[in-house]
Amino acid sequence: MSEESAPGAARRITIAVDAMGGDNAPAEVVTGAVAAAAAFDIDVVLTGRSGQLQPLLTTQAPGGIPVAPGSANGTWPPGHPDQVRIVPADDSLAMDEGALASWRRPRSSAAIACQLVRRGQAEAVVSAGSTAGAVATARLRLRSLPGVMRPGLAVVLPTRPGPTLLVDAGAIADPKPEMLVAFAQLGVAYAQVAHDIGEPRVGLLSIGAEPGKGNRLARRAHELLAGAPPHGGLPIHFVGNVEGGDLLAGKADVIVTDGFTGNVALKVLEGAAAFAAEQTRATLTGSAAARFGALFQRRGLRELAARMDAETYGGAALLGLEGTVVIAHGASTAKGVTSACHLAADLARGRITEKIRERLGPGRDRHFLRRS
Amino acid sequence: MSEESAPGAARRITIAVDAMGGDNAPAEVVTGAVAAAAAFDIDVVLTGRSGQLQPLLTTQAPGGIPVAPGSANGTWPPGHPDQVRIVPADDSLAMDEGALASWRRPRSSAAIACQLVRRGQAEAVVSAGSTAGAVATARLRLRSLPGVMRPGLAVVLPTRPGPTLLVDAGAIADPKPEMLVAFAQLGVAYAQVAHDIGEPRVGLLSIGAEPGKGNRLARRAHELLAGAPPHGGLPIHFVGNVEGGDLLAGKADVIVTDGFTGNVALKVLEGAAAFAAEQTRATLTGSAAARFGALFQRRGLRELAARMDAETYGGAALLGLEGTVVIAHGASTAKGVTSACHLAADLARGRITEKIRERLGPGRDRHFLRRS
Repeated sequence: MSEESAPGAARRITIAVDAMGGDNAPAEVVTGAVAAAAAFDIDVVLTGRSGQLQPLLTTQAPGGIPVAPGSANGTWPPGHPDQVRIVPADDSLAMDEGALASWRRPRSSAAIACQLVRRGQAEAVVSAGSTAGAVATARLRLRSLPGVMRPGLAVVLPTRPGPTLLVDAGAIADPKPEMLVAFAQLGVAYAQVAHDIGEPRVGLLSIGAEPGKGNRLARRAHELLAGAPPHGGLPIHFVGNVEGGDLLAGKADVIVTDGFTGNVALKVLEGAAAFAAEQTRATLTGSAAARFGALFQRRGLRELAARMDAETYGGAALLGLEGTVVIAHGASTAKGVTSACHLAADLARGRITEKIRERLGPGRDRHFLRRS
Repeated sequence: MSEESAPGAARRITIAVDAMGGDNAPAEVVTGAVAAAAAFDIDVVLTGRSGQLQPLLTTQAPGGIPVAPGSANGTWPPGHPDQVRIVPADDSLAMDEGALASWRRPRSSAAIACQLVRRGQAEAVVSAGSTAGAVATARLRLRSLPGVMRPGLAVVLPTRPGPTLLVDAGAIADPKPEMLVAFAQLGVAYAQVAHDIGEPRVGLLSIGAEPGKGNRLARRAHELLAGAPPHGGLPIHFVGNVEGGDLLAGKADVIVTDGFTGNVALKVLEGAAAFAAEQTRATLTGSAAARFGALFQRRGLRELAARMDAETYGGAALLGLEGTVVIAHGASTAKGVTSACHLAADLARGRITEKIRERLGPGRDRHFLRRS
């Protein structure tokens, strides 16, 4: 589908899935993507080595999902009914390869998936490859939105009653303070599209409630967030500093921070959840009496385990590029890949890219219209 | 007790407790300090307003602990048998006062407590006042150990099987990379004294296992930690980068980081523990059947709750000064203050200050001997 024909047309969502990325690629990725195509009524393009993917597709497509091999040159015939196809990519990024590898591998499965979005043949990319590699590849292959210096990685935290979005969870370790303002705009658009929050509250992660608390970066970012949005962008509902203990407290709908602090905070949270689950499990099964008692709690415990399970959250969205990119956990099983495809489809259907462009200011539209 | 008579003498440990610091001061602080004096066989000096403290002491000293008012000029008569006394301080730091207030309040209860340590009349300070205020006051009133540019705040994490120490948990938000090496030396001495670990493993908190991962500060600190210790200090057993998820995994005995990241990580951990406890409680009491089941797990659940309770950890130790300083949680109840006194007594008995001086290098001893 060309970009010219896109506006106004009721189009199906196509997700390009990097089938070679992740600890469990390609088998679990293929299984998860096939399940997503069936469950969420989307089209899926798998990028990777045809010789490996074709047998997996043939054996793993359950329940009558139509499967066909992609054409060799990766074009996407309009109106084709099949839901899952392959676009060949002969190279791939290893899990321990970082940002530099993305320069050396223009034919990697992740790069080809991004190319499909860039050429308008898919609306979003899903990859379970290494975060550093996936972020660098996406930055290289997809344009940044006007006004966005660097994309930010957005992760949904399982707060109650509503979810909280953390941006940046690890795309850039040493951002400038201005980038945190852009992360706020990206996060607000995400919360509006994916969480249906009209005016999301934005908090800045710091180490004290007062504006003067924090490191140099956080103090300057506080000044910028509290001031008027630059370039005529939409105003931000800034609620001030939040602390680490507030991440799950629902005090803000969007929490912005640098990628170093954000990644540490996210992983502390995941580690603490795993630790608490293990301690609880040990407590509830540590004696015969406790095990007997647990029989009466089976349903609740199953729900609790599901809520604490990172795989149900669908991974992190890389926001600020011309196209949606969702990075699933490197250790994702099929379930995690399915969740990531679901998130990618939701963001694409909600036209997250257009929402972000709108938030960054009306002046940006003209710039956008001049592109290409 | 004068400094001249100290070496070699078998002396009782005296803890100076800032009785006016904390959300629940002075009542809970007095109760907690009195309990600590009885439980751990230490002497306690309460600093604060005599008019408020004296009535509390009289009514709250249970079980025959001898209590006597301190002399008006704050001197400490040698050989006096009483375990809990008052040294007057007419001023105090409010909980919302930061670092600057410590300059303006030389007669605050926190400043007077530090003065007692400086003059050799107490071995350690305990305060539940605001962290920023307590750190700044201690830095002003107590000398830094030679070779320590800034003190670091050390917090014990409840890992299994052994505890892990996190330094810095919030004393300095923008440290230089060299300071993280000093934090490692401080933490190693602490782990040796308080956790009885011969050669503690030191990890650097970052966002990836490889040396090149992290922000500028972490990457430079990695180089320094992997290199030879400067100034002839004792070698550090550096195990490389650890990630946020490793905080509770027992991969290192000491984890060093900057005070911004460390404070965020600590508070995320506390918040996650509270969140998990609440979710678990709701699950285990959410239905009549689940409540019935919980009857069989009462003992285990009680132990789990105690393990997750921040008040049993005794607060954070500010390391790198000429004297031990323990900062209890601002919301501490009597139990938290008692734990903090226990930690302070342990560190003082283990001669943590001398251990740190030793780790920082033999050349430092001469410098130390020349002081005063």
